[in-house]
Amino acid sequence: MPRVVVDVMLKPEILDPQGQAVANALPRLGVSDVASVRIGRRIEIEFAGEPDLDRAREIADKLLANPVIEDFAVRVDTSDETAGAHS
Amino acid sequence: MPRVVVDVMLKPEILDPQGQAVANALPRLGVSDVASVRIGRRIEIEFAGEPDLDRAREIADKLLANPVIEDFAVRVDTSDETAGAHS
Amino acid sequence: MPRVVVDVMLKPEILDPQGQAVANALPRLGVSDVASVRIGRRIEIEFAGEPDLDRAREIADKLLANPVIEDFAVRVDTSDETAGAHS
Amino acid sequence: MPRVVVDVMLKPEILDPQGQAVANALPRLGVSDVASVRIGRRIEIEFAGEPDLDRAREIADKLLANPVIEDFAVRVDTSDETAGAHS
Repeated sequence: MPRVVVDVMLKPEILDPQGQAVANALPRLGVSDVASVRIGRRIEIEFAGEPDLDRAREIADKLLANPVIEDFAVRVDTSDETAGAHS
Repeated sequence: MPRVVVDVMLKPEILDPQGQAVANALPRLGVSDVASVRIGRRIEIEFAGEPDLDRAREIADKLLANPVIEDFAVRVDTSDETAGAHS
Repeated sequence: MPRVVVDVMLKPEILDPQGQAVANALPRLGVSDVASVRIGRRIEIEFAGEPDLDRAREIADKLLANPVIEDFAVRVDTSDETAGAHS
Repeated sequence: MPRVVVDVMLKPEILDPQGQAVANALPRLGVSDVASVRIGRRIEIEFAGEPDLDRAREIADKLLANPVIEDFAVRVDTSDETAGAHS
């Protein structure tokens, strides 16, 4: 089914304490080469017919993101985006 | 800075009530062609040096996702992924 | 305005990697006496009239929690619950 | 085990689109007397020894909340808080 993906991230200038917590936990895993971790949301919208980017953008703007503190990006999902990377 | 993106979604067979709430709210926006909405997490990991997929996968497995109820996918972020789609 | 609070937490037997990340980050803050951290959701529902616990429970069950993996608790918010503790 | 609860909510003046989505979905459940829904986080911190509110407040300030956009409240969990209300 055709799918639109909306990525929502806090704006770069806004502190993300949950990402910070993950970053601070990494040395205990022996990881020392990570500069930053940011945690946002990924929303998958399946359309009954054609995927509609304008519609998805409107949904994101009203129900998925707060444009004052968050940025969002909307795109049609391409089948090869995550291919082979799924664990 | 080189970046790895980790997408974490509830497994397909697990109900996502927050996505369901968004889907149920859509008719009030005049949207009737959406079949489903699923809400997950998107994590951006910036590496000080080369992006390291194996490392990112290990981080995801231990600190970002619960493999019993969630699937995750790891990929190196390509600059054109969201180009032109940012609102 | 009368308010009902719904607390949603992953069931105790389900691993919470985000809470684990916070717990793992604590030694870097000099904190060593924390046994566990669990991260859930708190939802505040304001009613136009009387707070309605049965209604809130129905909303939680359908739109706020997934009963297969999460527990939830519903209560009327009492004004002194957080008094003096707000930072 | 002694437990401290940290409630984190977006500041009242900051729009909460996820709560808005739930509120907008309620008429379809036949619910019309809800004025607003706000979704935040509830974090349970178990201490190995005595529950330490000052410590919990420091953890919240650094790893759980972003004080620019969120308010948090810290309290020792009392056993009767949710008694009888668990679904």
